[in-house]
Amino acid sequence: MATHDFEPTHFHVTIGSHEPVLRVASGDTIRTWCVDAAGNDRTGASITRGGNPQTGPFFIEDAKPGDTLAVHFDRLRPSRSRGVSGQVIAPQVVDPWFVRELPVRDPSGDWWTLDLERGTARLQEPPEGLEHLELQLDPMLGCFGVAPARGEAISTATSAQHGGNMDYRGFREGVTVFLPVFADGALLHVGDGHALQGDGEIVGTGIEVSMDVELTVEVIASKEIGWPRGENDEFVFAVGNARPLDQAVQHATTELLRLLEQDYGLDYRAGSALLGQCIRYDVGNVFDPAYTMVAKVEKGLLP
Amino acid sequence: MATHDFEPTHFHVTIGSHEPVLRVASGDTIRTWCVDAAGNDRTGASITRGGNPQTGPFFIEDAKPGDTLAVHFDRLRPSRSRGVSGQVIAPQVVDPWFVRELPVRDPSGDWWTLDLERGTARLQEPPEGLEHLELQLDPMLGCFGVAPARGEAISTATSAQHGGNMDYRGFREGVTVFLPVFADGALLHVGDGHALQGDGEIVGTGIEVSMDVELTVEVIASKEIGWPRGENDEFVFAVGNARPLDQAVQHATTELLRLLEQDYGLDYRAGSALLGQCIRYDVGNVFDPAYTMVAKVEKGLLP
Amino acid sequence: MATHDFEPTHFHVTIGSHEPVLRVASGDTIRTWCVDAAGNDRTGASITRGGNPQTGPFFIEDAKPGDTLAVHFDRLRPSRSRGVSGQVIAPQVVDPWFVRELPVRDPSGDWWTLDLERGTARLQEPPEGLEHLELQLDPMLGCFGVAPARGEAISTATSAQHGGNMDYRGFREGVTVFLPVFADGALLHVGDGHALQGDGEIVGTGIEVSMDVELTVEVIASKEIGWPRGENDEFVFAVGNARPLDQAVQHATTELLRLLEQDYGLDYRAGSALLGQCIRYDVGNVFDPAYTMVAKVEKGLLP
Amino acid sequence: MATHDFEPTHFHVTIGSHEPVLRVASGDTIRTWCVDAAGNDRTGASITRGGNPQTGPFFIEDAKPGDTLAVHFDRLRPSRSRGVSGQVIAPQVVDPWFVRELPVRDPSGDWWTLDLERGTARLQEPPEGLEHLELQLDPMLGCFGVAPARGEAISTATSAQHGGNMDYRGFREGVTVFLPVFADGALLHVGDGHALQGDGEIVGTGIEVSMDVELTVEVIASKEIGWPRGENDEFVFAVGNARPLDQAVQHATTELLRLLEQDYGLDYRAGSALLGQCIRYDVGNVFDPAYTMVAKVEKGLLP
Repeated sequence: MATHDFEPTHFHVTIGSHEPVLRVASGDTIRTWCVDAAGNDRTGASITRGGNPQTGPFFIEDAKPGDTLAVHFDRLRPSRSRGVSGQVIAPQVVDPWFVRELPVRDPSGDWWTLDLERGTARLQEPPEGLEHLELQLDPMLGCFGVAPARGEAISTATSAQHGGNMDYRGFREGVTVFLPVFADGALLHVGDGHALQGDGEIVGTGIEVSMDVELTVEVIASKEIGWPRGENDEFVFAVGNARPLDQAVQHATTELLRLLEQDYGLDYRAGSALLGQCIRYDVGNVFDPAYTMVAKVEKGLLP
Repeated sequence: MATHDFEPTHFHVTIGSHEPVLRVASGDTIRTWCVDAAGNDRTGASITRGGNPQTGPFFIEDAKPGDTLAVHFDRLRPSRSRGVSGQVIAPQVVDPWFVRELPVRDPSGDWWTLDLERGTARLQEPPEGLEHLELQLDPMLGCFGVAPARGEAISTATSAQHGGNMDYRGFREGVTVFLPVFADGALLHVGDGHALQGDGEIVGTGIEVSMDVELTVEVIASKEIGWPRGENDEFVFAVGNARPLDQAVQHATTELLRLLEQDYGLDYRAGSALLGQCIRYDVGNVFDPAYTMVAKVEKGLLP
Repeated sequence: MATHDFEPTHFHVTIGSHEPVLRVASGDTIRTWCVDAAGNDRTGASITRGGNPQTGPFFIEDAKPGDTLAVHFDRLRPSRSRGVSGQVIAPQVVDPWFVRELPVRDPSGDWWTLDLERGTARLQEPPEGLEHLELQLDPMLGCFGVAPARGEAISTATSAQHGGNMDYRGFREGVTVFLPVFADGALLHVGDGHALQGDGEIVGTGIEVSMDVELTVEVIASKEIGWPRGENDEFVFAVGNARPLDQAVQHATTELLRLLEQDYGLDYRAGSALLGQCIRYDVGNVFDPAYTMVAKVEKGLLP
Repeated sequence: MATHDFEPTHFHVTIGSHEPVLRVASGDTIRTWCVDAAGNDRTGASITRGGNPQTGPFFIEDAKPGDTLAVHFDRLRPSRSRGVSGQVIAPQVVDPWFVRELPVRDPSGDWWTLDLERGTARLQEPPEGLEHLELQLDPMLGCFGVAPARGEAISTATSAQHGGNMDYRGFREGVTVFLPVFADGALLHVGDGHALQGDGEIVGTGIEVSMDVELTVEVIASKEIGWPRGENDEFVFAVGNARPLDQAVQHATTELLRLLEQDYGLDYRAGSALLGQCIRYDVGNVFDPAYTMVAKVEKGLLP
């Protein structure tokens, strides 16, 4: 149960079977940090190319294909007081005939001042009508995952069974994430901190910020899962990543049925009866190449 | 501000420009009831063919094409102590290769006992592992709407700009719904009561039940909206109905941007900055021919 | 086997259980004409509102729900020498980020001169680089169908199991179309002539023109089909109408499998082996609310 | 203009920046061969793992990111007289409620005898009703491409801008394919021979066979394209790879508009007028993770 402090020096814009930067045991904790999505560190300095650069990969001893890697997000904290977001809703998120009515996007984005003590964010130059706006921080990781199967190296712009750029608000401090292991050591990558984010990441960003991260990892041997799963105080959940969103719904719902069978002994008949009246869906992102849908159910309803 | 008690005697399985059953003024309240989705009344007797039969239509004086009809759901109460739900998750909601692993559906469904005093539901014959399950009632209307444009008569199996079979949990007591008026008198139809429902209506039903309904209607003259909208204590929201779900997202997001401009004076630039970090999506249904997505934002964040 | 000449005087912009304009027997031929999609007749005069106005409905004696109506397109001929098309590809047919790069559409459209003797079309004001362009006419009907089930009246903007606005190039002279009968008399509607059209109807129109139409109808009693089907000299085909196009693929492919079983005695195992290596897909439209996909197979390959 | 004979000894199941196996100059010809999709060679021996194993990559001198690589398919010939196909239409290609009606798939597949002299294929054990079936061979490559951007290594199960598993019947002998270059040397991979294939690859395979391949490559410097393009005697075409098929339509149509501007000087206004009435769509595959749509136009219509 060691704790490792790790200072990253280079970053990856694919998630794949890259050279591990650190080897840890199941049960260990890693304290490290991530640049923001554009490659800027806590000082705002650009230290690597943009595109959700990842810290890692971390090699978890004994993790083998067919296992599950549990990752507990012990601590996710923005490491600077300035974040940036996209200005305009992405064209694929509005009606096609409406695209021309959207304002033109200034690529420099909207800058936000983060009050890390009070846990709030304010726009530095609010558009008219938003002068009053003060939002509660809700820090999360947009992109993380393990090396995919078959030797793939998948762009950190997108997501799949291995995780990746899911941009789901629920990946916040306190959650435990479960990832299917496809490569020896699992090879965990983390990055893309958001001080907060709306559902869908519809402007293409949350409030992008560098992040201090503390994670505890655990190998669950010989437990095979199909898609990322998670658990927090209230819910168990399953994630589907695909386009269209309908297919993400299919992946997430199927995986949640399997979770109920594997972890709670409910067959698909009982799972159907329960989920039919009790399932909740959260939209992760509807911006990235693969969209993300989360299917969840209250733990209090489970046997 | 009259209150009308209306006893339905026949029902419609399309929403269209049918003969009105009652004429009311803007501001009036209608007290009536609906059969369940299968056409059974409060005694359980089958009194009309199934398929979300509608009570109405109600002609609201002075409502004209180009207006908006506000409908406040004053009271939605199940009118009997027995409801039914589908047994198995629909094949389009799971992975195609998983369809064969689903159990075979018994078309008689799962029956629930509703304790209307305590506000709870229990399965009459729970599958193994669900013996403990007691759910809180959360009554809602699955299908309602106004006569569509162009003389269309649209099946109550599906939904569009006029409303219809949206199967959204948020259409519960206390909400105010806004519908675009396409025909003189608006011609409001209501039906398809659910004692409660999961997100997505993934077994094809909520807990289907006959319902006592009390509604107050109001005409908002010369206000043109594109899709159903709503408001409750916490949120304003806009609804999109389409397949794939991605297109429902487009409709709902576009309509919410327009709502923010019409009702709160936020232009699309300000609307983008706000929604980018604050939008929330709810899944209505992913079962009917048109899927339903709801885009919403907290009223407390608005100017 | 009578031949009926019918002069339309009013037109419908929904396909539904409207009052029949003519009653004919199975085996009879109807000679009539259609206005163009905008409601203009052979003289170019606007005689009815636009939106694919339909001639009909024709009541075919003895057609009952559960039957199939065969409609042979004996003759489809443009009835004037001037047609019009949309100018710009629809925004939903290009990448969302590309929408702004499209030119702005002039709603008056592009006008074409039709040489009905030579069977060709030329742009009256060709954009630079298209001065040479002379196209072969290939007349077809964009929108036709029978009254839908359940008393629906469906907009002629869209399509479903009953037919409707499928905008498929293959609905040309010489084809036989098969439609499922949902209402007594079938209630056949026809309209929306195109002098020619590209796949997908991606500018929202073909070359829109008024049309002289000759049809022979035949009732196939007690043959139940799920979707429109067709046959020409070379192929048998099945049509699916839905969004996304993936769902139209599902409907068309399923219906073609059923056609092979019903009409040629191939079970789904044989149908799979045949279609797996021999199916051909045609795109009908990717513009209307429901997209259209056609699945077909060469008759020469069938037992 | 050298001709290189290359004997592969190992194969890749991702397309990525792997170690080149041969360096050739622009204008050179490569004669080589591919195992079939399952990793079997011309003798039927399994020599590598399955999943569309690729021969290559070939490094083309002087090819740089921002260039286009032209690949002429000089010769594509099955190298053995036995091929295999999937038995049953994939569940995602039929209606969800129809999936259970499909027969159960025997994973050993349907075997075909290929008469390479006569150019025909016959089922070795035809299902009833297909005893007569003799198909014309139409050999093609299902999967090929260049190293993607950003260091990605993309599974040969799927496709994207770099090419990949497009499974399009039009990639046959005589076509010239154009691929965007993302990495120095382009790094061309080829594999997945089909003796013939239906549209959509709806049973998950064509008639899978090992293949002798002869290709001539040419670098087109400083010509940037977005998606694979192609040209044969009759058509120019552009390829889109995505799900849903609607998005593949968007990619292909946008790329064809750009092709018309880059290669024929037609601006988007002229391109719209031409494609609106003349575009043709071909379905590549509707089986793989990314579906493939091809947009094309007759060369005889171009200025």
